[in-house]
Parts: sequence; C-alpha cells; structure tokens
Amino acid sequence: MPSQSYQAFITRVREIQMAASIESLLEWDQETMLPPRGAELRAAQLGFIAGVSHERLTGSDFARLLEQAERESAGDPEVEPNLREMRRAFDRKVKLPTSLVQEIARTVSLAKEAWVRARKGSNFAAFAPHLEKLLDLKRQVAEKIGFTTEPYDALMDEYEPGARSADVQKVFDQVKKELVPLVAAIRSAPRRPDESVLKRHAPRETQAVLNRLIATAMGFDFDAGRLDVSTHPFCSGLTPQDVRLTTRYDEHYLPMSLFGVMHEAGHGLYEQGLDPAHAFTPLGQSVSLGIHESQSRMWENLVGRSRSFWLYFYPLLQAALPAWREVPLDDWYFAINTVKPSLIRVEADEVTYNLHIMLRFDLERRMLRGEIAVRDVPAAWNDAFKSLLGITPSSDAEGCLQDIHWSMGIFGYFPTYALGNLYACQFFKAANQALPDLPARIAHGELQPLRDWLRKNIHVHGQRYRADELVKRVTGRPLGHADFMEHLRSKYQPLYGLH
Amino acid sequence: MPSQSYQAFITRVREIQMAASIESLLEWDQETMLPPRGAELRAAQLGFIAGVSHERLTGSDFARLLEQAERESAGDPEVEPNLREMRRAFDRKVKLPTSLVQEIARTVSLAKEAWVRARKGSNFAAFAPHLEKLLDLKRQVAEKIGFTTEPYDALMDEYEPGARSADVQKVFDQVKKELVPLVAAIRSAPRRPDESVLKRHAPRETQAVLNRLIATAMGFDFDAGRLDVSTHPFCSGLTPQDVRLTTRYDEHYLPMSLFGVMHEAGHGLYEQGLDPAHAFTPLGQSVSLGIHESQSRMWENLVGRSRSFWLYFYPLLQAALPAWREVPLDDWYFAINTVKPSLIRVEADEVTYNLHIMLRFDLERRMLRGEIAVRDVPAAWNDAFKSLLGITPSSDAEGCLQDIHWSMGIFGYFPTYALGNLYACQFFKAANQALPDLPARIAHGELQPLRDWLRKNIHVHGQRYRADELVKRVTGRPLGHADFMEHLRSKYQPLYGLH
Repeated sequence: MPSQSYQAFITRVREIQMAASIESLLEWDQETMLPPRGAELRAAQLGFIAGVSHERLTGSDFARLLEQAERESAGDPEVEPNLREMRRAFDRKVKLPTSLVQEIARTVSLAKEAWVRARKGSNFAAFAPHLEKLLDLKRQVAEKIGFTTEPYDALMDEYEPGARSADVQKVFDQVKKELVPLVAAIRSAPRRPDESVLKRHAPRETQAVLNRLIATAMGFDFDAGRLDVSTHPFCSGLTPQDVRLTTRYDEHYLPMSLFGVMHEAGHGLYEQGLDPAHAFTPLGQSVSLGIHESQSRMWENLVGRSRSFWLYFYPLLQAALPAWREVPLDDWYFAINTVKPSLIRVEADEVTYNLHIMLRFDLERRMLRGEIAVRDVPAAWNDAFKSLLGITPSSDAEGCLQDIHWSMGIFGYFPTYALGNLYACQFFKAANQALPDLPARIAHGELQPLRDWLRKNIHVHGQRYRADELVKRVTGRPLGHADFMEHLRSKYQPLYGLH
Repeated sequence: MPSQSYQAFITRVREIQMAASIESLLEWDQETMLPPRGAELRAAQLGFIAGVSHERLTGSDFARLLEQAERESAGDPEVEPNLREMRRAFDRKVKLPTSLVQEIARTVSLAKEAWVRARKGSNFAAFAPHLEKLLDLKRQVAEKIGFTTEPYDALMDEYEPGARSADVQKVFDQVKKELVPLVAAIRSAPRRPDESVLKRHAPRETQAVLNRLIATAMGFDFDAGRLDVSTHPFCSGLTPQDVRLTTRYDEHYLPMSLFGVMHEAGHGLYEQGLDPAHAFTPLGQSVSLGIHESQSRMWENLVGRSRSFWLYFYPLLQAALPAWREVPLDDWYFAINTVKPSLIRVEADEVTYNLHIMLRFDLERRMLRGEIAVRDVPAAWNDAFKSLLGITPSSDAEGCLQDIHWSMGIFGYFPTYALGNLYACQFFKAANQALPDLPARIAHGELQPLRDWLRKNIHVHGQRYRADELVKRVTGRPLGHADFMEHLRSKYQPLYGLH
C-alpha cells in the first residue's frame, strides 16, 4: 500500500502529465483541425499550458513531495519506476537555469528561420553561425545536466533515457561493417524491382478504406482512436483510450499512406497498450523514442513489407484497387522492398536507412566534442555519405541541410531511429520464437497474436523497465546487431538474386 | 498608458481565460472528435484545466493584483471594463465556500441521473427531492453572493450580468399581454401552411454545401472557423480567429440544419467580431447570454425566415435540391414560418417560444422564493401552459420534466433566451433605420452590410458596456417589448390572413 506522501506526490505527477496530454491535444488539433487564422492565438494557448506543466514540475513543493515520497516509499517495487523517472525529469528541469533555457529558445527561433532560408538557397554558410551557437548552448546543457563519459550522453538521455553513446557506437560499428557491403551488393545486384507498380492510380477514399481495414486487423481500436489527415504524419497518444494517427495521401504513390498508416498504427498500438490505471504517470507511458520506433518499424517493415502479410492482404488490395488487378503478388512484393542508396533520410528504405543515421550520430558527437569545426561539416557529410552509400549529395540542401533537427537545437535524437530498427528485429525474432506459427497466422490475416504478445511483453509495462533492461527481459540478450543483419540478409539476398 | 500593476493583473487575467478557452477546446473535441472510449480520461483532463483556471482566479495573489490595479487604474476608461468584470467574476467565486460548491457538484451529479430516469418514466415525484435540495443550495448561493431585491437576481446575474428580475418581469408582462391573444388568433386563423414541403428529401452532403454557402454569405470566415457535426448543435468561440460551429442533419427535415447553422453562425459572427487585441480578457469577450442569443436569433429568424432572404436564396436552394423545384417560394416561406402551440420548448416557433420561457421564469422565481412547493410544480406548469398556449401536456415528461437545466442546478438561465429574442428585434430595427436599403440588399443576397453594422455597434466592444447600456447606446432606448411585438404582428398577421 503506497504511503500517503506517495499519494500526494503521484497526484501532482498526474497533473503534470495531464497538462502535457492537453498540450498534445492542442498540437494535434493544430495539425488537423485548426482554422488557418487560429494559429497565432493557439501559440499563446500552447505557451500557457506548457508553463502550467513546467511550474508544477519545478515548483519547490514538487521537490518536497518527491523527496518525501522517495524517503517513505524507497524499495517498493510498485512505485519505484514512477519515483525514478520523475526524479530524472525533475533533475533535468531544475538543473537548467532559466536564463539558459530562454537563450536556447531565442536562438532556436532565429536558427529555424535561418535554416529554412539556408536550405532553400543551399547555403550552409548562412546557417553555420546558428549551428555553432546552438552547439555551444547544448554543450552548456550537457555540463549542467552532467554525464559520466561524454556530453552527448546527457543530450541523448532526453530521448533514450539511460542510453550511452559508447554502447550505441559499438552496435552501430558492427552494423556498419556488415551493412555497407550488403548495400553495395544490392546496388550491383542482377535483379531490380519494377517501381512503376507503386505509382498506379489509387483513389484517396479507397486508400482510406484500406488503411482502416489494415489498422483494424493489426488490432488498433478505433473506439479508442482516430485516423485523420495532416501534412506530416504522426501519432498522438493523449491517453491509452484516445490515440490519434494521421497520414497523408498521394493518389499516385500508394505506399505513402499504406506504410505510413502501418507505421503510425504501430506507434498507436503501443499507446493503446499502456495501462490506463497508470495514466498520466511514468508507469503508464512509453519507455523511450527508440522503443517507440521499434513498434512502428516492426509493423511497417517486418510485418507490412513481408511476403506473408501480402499473401492475405494483396487480394484485398487488388479487389479494392482495379489498377493492381494485373500486377502479380511477387512484383508488388519486390517493388515495396526496393533498395537503393538515396540522398534523403526520410525517403530511405529499410536497408539503407540506418546508414543515414550512423552518419548523423557520428557527426553530432564530433561536433559536440569540438573535433570537427562547423564549417567542415558539409565536406565531412559528403565524404561519409560517399563511403557509406556510394553516392554524393550534389548540394547541401540534399546533404547536411536536409533535416530540421539541428536548427531546433535537437542533438542526440537521430540515433533513436536506428535503435528502433534494431530493437524491432530483436523483439520480432523473440516473438517468432514464442509464437512459432506467427508467419502462418500473418499469412491468414491474423495479426492480433503479435499485437497481444507485444502488449503483454512490452506495452503494458510502461516505464517499469528502462530500454536496456526491457530488451534483455524480452529477448534474453542486450541489444545487438545480429538479428537486424540476419533479417536483412535472409530477406534481401534472395530477393535481389544474391547468395 | 496602463500602469505596471495593471499589466501584471491583465497577464494573469489572460491566463485564466486561456485556461477557459482550452477547456472549451476539450469540450468541443469531446462533442465532435473524441473516440468513444476516451471520455473517462477526458473528464480528468477537463477537471484539471478547470482547476487551473479556478486556482488562478481565486488565489490570494490574484486578489492582490486586482486590488492594486483597481487602485492605480481607477477612472481609466480603457481598462475599467476589464477591472469591473474581473472584480465581478472574482467576487462571485470567492464568496462561495468550497464546501457549498462541492455539495452542489455532488447533488447535481445525482440529480442528473434521477432526472433522466424520472423523465423516462414521466415520474416527477422521483425527481422532486433532488429539485428541492438544489433549490435549497441555490438559495444559499444567492445569499452568499448577495442581491438587492430578490435572490433570483443573484443567480440570473451569472448569465446576464446586471439584469434584475423586476425589470425583466415588467417587459415579459407586456409581451405576454399582447402575445397570448396573437397566438390564439393564429391558432384559429383562416390560413395554414403546408408543412409537408419541409419534409422532402435533402441529401446530407447537399445540405452541408448550402449551409457553408449561406454562412459564408453571412460573412462567417471559414479561415477563422469550422463547421462540424455533433448531437447537439453549438458554437464554440475559442478565440476570435478560431470559432467552431456544429450542426446535425435530418435528410427528411431540412430546416434542422438550415436554420440551425444560421443560428450558430449568428453566434459565430459575434465571436469572430470580438477584438483579437483584447483576446482572453473581458474586453474581448461577449456581454451576456441574452446579447449572444440576440445575434443568433436575428440571423435565424429576422433574416433567415424573412421573405427578402429567400427571394435571393430560394432559387439557389431549388437548384441544389431537386425535390423543391416545384414548390413555390411563397409555400416555402409560409411553411418555414409555421406557428402552432406545442409542448416542447426546443421545437417551438418564433411566435410561441417566449411563452415557454415566461412560464419557466415565473415558476423558477416562485420556487426560489418558496411561494410554491416543489410537489405542486407539475400542476402549476400545466395550468400556466393551458392559459398561455391553450394546450395541456399529457405527461410531465412533455411538461415540467422536459429540460435538463434544473437537474444541473441551473436557475436564471431560461430568461436569457427570451431576452435574446427581444434584443434581436430592437437591434434589428435600429439596423434597418441605420441602413434603409437593408431589405433590398438582403434580397440581393448581400448580408455583409448587416454583419458589418453588428460588428461595429455590438461585437467589437466586447464587455465594454453591460447589456442594458449597450441596448440604450445602440437603439437609443432601454429594452422594451414594442419592436418584438411589432415584428410579429407585421409579419404573421398578413401571413395567416388576420387583420
């Protein structure tokens, strides 16, 4: 039975997270519903609610509530994760002086504008001073927050609590060693898919019907969620009973919404699988961005781009979309698994994607340590790109200026995408070991056994375990590169006629 | 130049109202977008944000900010309305002990359930004890808040600031005296409209197109607003640049959405006409429920049910809806102005509506004063109904149990509906005097001159003037019954073949 002081503490925690969930609703609404002229005063509302959350977290009485709860509830495993994660959030907030936070906000505001212009003109020099200043400020953040081995850890910790760069580096190095030759082999493979089969005409309304059908088959509960349209797709888990996906449609590129919705519904299943009894507390929230991404990538790539999946769903797709009636399953399957080195991360395929990330991870760390001058970033980017992917950007707009992250002062976020891909393969292998008939079930359109396994093993625990502990509990091993590489090789070598 | 203490005060006021606008968004979302299972945790979010607003309004530092601002800014006409209205809101809040507020909340929660059951079984006795308890609590509220002549004033003040029952009674009495004979005359009139022309088939999508066309012609800005579907239509003015209307559709009763949207768009124009520079302060908010209702009723009834309006819009309606091609304009015009005494307030027409309200106003005051026992309410209701409208409810479900208001502890709200109808006629007459070609413009589909006049004379002032002062400034006279009765007589006597 949790102590009285814990009850007072957790009541306050719920308030902080309720404010955050309300902020998420305001953001969702802004992307999907807000009339155009409403944006200005929406910004004021967003600023206000963020302030409410901040003041409740950093107020002196929260410190007191937290300390009392820690003293009186120490050792109670039922409440320990909530104490641990709120201590982490509190420390991260109070260690940063308001003046530093405000200077970052001002700098980001200018840097974002500068980045938009710089990318438009492919003019890195115009963005460089902003990047330099942001790196300096972020170094200060890392110093204030503290770290054991290197400053990057303190930044990455915001998105992937407890992760350490050195460990990530080790896994990434192993991936790189095996992945670069695989990508090169695929580049010169004897077989190529016919990508034109992806570009046939698919009416928007029919796409929407297919999306709902597949998301429902995945076990996404539309009584506890929605699917809407926005410029950039996202998933907003306001509560486990109110999870909102968005997508965008291209009538001449079906994969955009098709795999986009599977991706977002993967995130959505995680959110719907959290325990509502722990709503608005860490035990009712997702572990990290990497673990979140493992769920979306598993559904999008390991399920959605598998042949088993389309054995069942392709005839349904063909029934709904006449333009595909004459396209054989194996042509479709090959086309949705097109692999080719490309310049833009967000358009990259399952095989090459992690190389885009590793390049950024490496550059970010070197920039932060001051091992590379900002002015040398474009050349370093292009060199690394060439050595990893075999091609070179023709401009910085297609190179080191392509992502918004740095202009927002976000460093340490990129690796979570690659970690997601790696976690996904390791979890999926464990699921297949636990459910030996999984491919057969998927081939019959039965996706819920996988959802149920994920829910039981991952979703329902919320933040009970940190990512490293979770992956060990679920798969019996720490995160490694082997399952990811095995997945890629066993799938793509036969597909591309390699051996 | 407002003083520094005023600036500190108004910053806090903006926070209070921003919290209220966020609460409105959560409510709008609940009625239009929220997945069904999301309701439970939405209630928690709503409770939280209401608490944020409450704590900022009733906190001791708000009292201090308000007092300082009052001291230092007294006599500054630019800030006086904000001081006046926040003082009123503050006093109303802090005068009520938390224990009383909580007991009302508990009682309402049980009373609402009891009312639903009582109405279902038409069993007033089952609801009576709840009504009795709520009246007792509301008497305590009135005592705490204070009043000069009677307790009802203290309750009505929540919805119609500054209104006094005795004044309202005087106007209502004059209306009643002239309206009861008019209704009786129409009941036995030689001509009757053919209501079947309202029930032809109108596809939902076509209705939606017509609604948007008419709302746009009224000057409703869809770049600063939306139109969605909900069970009960409403208008939510989150900010002047984000105003959301809802409606509902019946494919076999076109007037429901048609006049419903004109009504809500009338509210919406008021919200869009408020000054965004004063957003989240009383100067940027509507005066009262009565003034708000005057805007919706003017557009719905005085414009939307006028012959001038349909001279322009009926051919468009006929072009969109083939089922009306053979229905002559005058048959349509007569049908949308059907007058007949009916039992249910929300279905009442423009002529009989105010009688429904006057009956409730009279009963509420007598109940509150203890002049009538709760057990005698059904008989009193039925007697009054017979004498005002000439018909008698066959059950309490169709009589005194029909409205949800009392079960929610809401007393003093009903009169604002009738005040809205009266204000509407008085404002509309002034508009016609100021714009002599208004009927001709409306007959050409030009509705914006009226919108612009309303904006300039009413909307943009926010709460600068209380309702009684506003009506005097705009029309040169205090609120009276004459314009309302003149409107009804000049329109309905010829229509029904009376003289």
